[in-house]
Amino acid sequence: MNNLLVAQSGGPTAAINATLVGVLQGVRTSTKVDKVYGAKNGIEGVINGNLLDLNDLVKDTHAIDTLTYTPASALGSCRYKMKDWKVNEEPYKKIIETFRKYDIKYFIYIGGNDSMDTVDKLSEYCMINSLDVKVMGGPKTIDNDLNLTDHCPGFGSAAKYIATTISELERDINVYDIPAVTIVEIMGRNAGWLTAASALARVNGGSGPDLIYLCEKTFDYDRYIQDVKDKLAKKPGILVAVSEGIKDGTGAYVSDSMSSGAVDNFGHKYIAGAARALEQLTRERIGCKVRAVELNLMQRAAAHIASETDIQESILLGLKAFNCAVEGETGRMAAIKRISNDPYLVEFTSVPVSEVANHEKTVPIDWITPEGNDVTEEMMAYLRPLIIGEVNLKYGNGIPKQYRLY
Amino acid sequence: MNNLLVAQSGGPTAAINATLVGVLQGVRTSTKVDKVYGAKNGIEGVINGNLLDLNDLVKDTHAIDTLTYTPASALGSCRYKMKDWKVNEEPYKKIIETFRKYDIKYFIYIGGNDSMDTVDKLSEYCMINSLDVKVMGGPKTIDNDLNLTDHCPGFGSAAKYIATTISELERDINVYDIPAVTIVEIMGRNAGWLTAASALARVNGGSGPDLIYLCEKTFDYDRYIQDVKDKLAKKPGILVAVSEGIKDGTGAYVSDSMSSGAVDNFGHKYIAGAARALEQLTRERIGCKVRAVELNLMQRAAAHIASETDIQESILLGLKAFNCAVEGETGRMAAIKRISNDPYLVEFTSVPVSEVANHEKTVPIDWITPEGNDVTEEMMAYLRPLIIGEVNLKYGNGIPKQYRLY
Repeated sequence: MNNLLVAQSGGPTAAINATLVGVLQGVRTSTKVDKVYGAKNGIEGVINGNLLDLNDLVKDTHAIDTLTYTPASALGSCRYKMKDWKVNEEPYKKIIETFRKYDIKYFIYIGGNDSMDTVDKLSEYCMINSLDVKVMGGPKTIDNDLNLTDHCPGFGSAAKYIATTISELERDINVYDIPAVTIVEIMGRNAGWLTAASALARVNGGSGPDLIYLCEKTFDYDRYIQDVKDKLAKKPGILVAVSEGIKDGTGAYVSDSMSSGAVDNFGHKYIAGAARALEQLTRERIGCKVRAVELNLMQRAAAHIASETDIQESILLGLKAFNCAVEGETGRMAAIKRISNDPYLVEFTSVPVSEVANHEKTVPIDWITPEGNDVTEEMMAYLRPLIIGEVNLKYGNGIPKQYRLY
Repeated sequence: MNNLLVAQSGGPTAAINATLVGVLQGVRTSTKVDKVYGAKNGIEGVINGNLLDLNDLVKDTHAIDTLTYTPASALGSCRYKMKDWKVNEEPYKKIIETFRKYDIKYFIYIGGNDSMDTVDKLSEYCMINSLDVKVMGGPKTIDNDLNLTDHCPGFGSAAKYIATTISELERDINVYDIPAVTIVEIMGRNAGWLTAASALARVNGGSGPDLIYLCEKTFDYDRYIQDVKDKLAKKPGILVAVSEGIKDGTGAYVSDSMSSGAVDNFGHKYIAGAARALEQLTRERIGCKVRAVELNLMQRAAAHIASETDIQESILLGLKAFNCAVEGETGRMAAIKRISNDPYLVEFTSVPVSEVANHEKTVPIDWITPEGNDVTEEMMAYLRPLIIGEVNLKYGNGIPKQYRLY
């Protein structure tokens, strides 16, 4: 028997199930695979032998269609970082046990940085132990920070949600004629791609954010206050987009500037975000109305406004990972190579996962304006194609239909 | 000349421009109105004579279509509460001046409670001063708290956004198998309608929020902790929906329980929300992973997932307000009367604005479960029809198109 095992890991996205669907499309149309299983909660499910039988699902065209547009990981997820097998071989042995028990010939792991590290370590372990299991990675992360792929599945949909939401907030905050600053915090500890996507709110002529601060550039409090004052001198409603991970000149997170001091009634430290910290600062230094908004989990879960480009590419990356595996590749990740921006053309390829794992692809500094408060046209040209197209969602009783595996 | 003036007021919604469109449709198809103007920033624009000429817009079918689906108040808004004319007649005199200067025969004011108070006072002032201006109100508020109308334009779209978002968050938080509580704060200081709408995340069989607390019922901290513990005993990912305005047994806002104690580095009081306060409490008392999420401005601005029922009814309410005005009514508000839930049937009517102004329609206590942590089937039957249908949005470059009046 040549069976395939697929699992999902890391933070959920609106597109991670589309990549699972791509894998299942491969299974359905290939003679190379006999049975297909899904590990529950990522690599933990492989270690514990907690597998779901996907052989009925793979034949259910309607369910597969709904699954494509269902947010978050249908197979569950985990945050499990595998240690080197020389340090702790036990989990590896258990994985091999599961592989043997279920006649697994192919293992496809869909996830971000940590998951690619797992693919790297596991493919190496299989080779060293002469176990013929092909281990392939399927990329996934809204953060868009994976190395060697032009962009990551999940990013385009999060970017479309952010661009749309910022365009709506821009309309909202401009209805009053009194000075007010709205600070929107966007996910990204070390990579500012998602925050950069807020600039896409301008694609139809809207003003979008008035100021954009990415975590790649040192955040200067005084400069920020001056930037806001300059903008307020021109119009009353100011929209600021900031990465959650912006840091000041000392290398400290802006978010810590508040949480280090704030305590609640019980004396417990209060953990705030970057936008909350800037809300306080802006109120103190400028004195106008200020509001902090966090896009929070919504930005990674908003399947209802997924990017068709993102969803289609996510399916194709799943299929690419499948094809690489059955064609004998191991220790590699399916990836996207961009040929051109306009027309937007990409190729699907595979890259060595060892060069992906434990790297973070951050925003090139020259894609941020010299003033550090906006992004450049190069960034816009990169971002624009990724949010194009709307998905053909099926609704039931007024909300999008979802597929639930368990 | 018989001219019409229209204005928008209060917090923006995804449907307030649809009501403006209904008024403009009336103007376009009636012989009773010569010219149409929009006051900029609500009643303030009427007072200051800051009027926009809408006579070109009214003939631009394409612009009108885009305007229908553009969030927030295209004419701008204000937060202006008029005093009684016996206390301060000056603003009234200025309004009359504007009415006379522009030959205004009809004034339609789209807004919430305060705006209906303005309609009430102004219609009375006109009558007392023998000025033949018909003043009509068009309802608007995501809070759904206006008296004498079954529901309010803007509420259905906010409810659809909330239901969809909660269904997505429910998928998101259930991917891990470690205990975690996610607390979602939903708008509503005194009325819990929007928080109740989170239950609509269940319409297709999803679990939706595990616990729902509305501001109409006293919030008991101990009971809440026990509720969460009970839920955690059954599954790891718990989703809690709370109104921003929940209050404890002493009548104090839950949100104040934290902000009263928390201070930042500068010693300034930190203003948190109800979800943040409960996040702290849950972490202290239960000790698991906890996250606070605020739907914030997004819930009132999310035109990209507007309810078709809401948008169509909002247009018809604008048209109803128009027809009432030209048929000679004054001091009244266009309103919706529900005939039946299933099939969903409504009638458009008008009601005396004096009975709308300064009242708040809160959730009936018997639509909340006796345990105080969920809503009843009666509430569901009321809510279900309001989120039905999707709008035919036009996209440009990946985000919804918007119309900008200025």
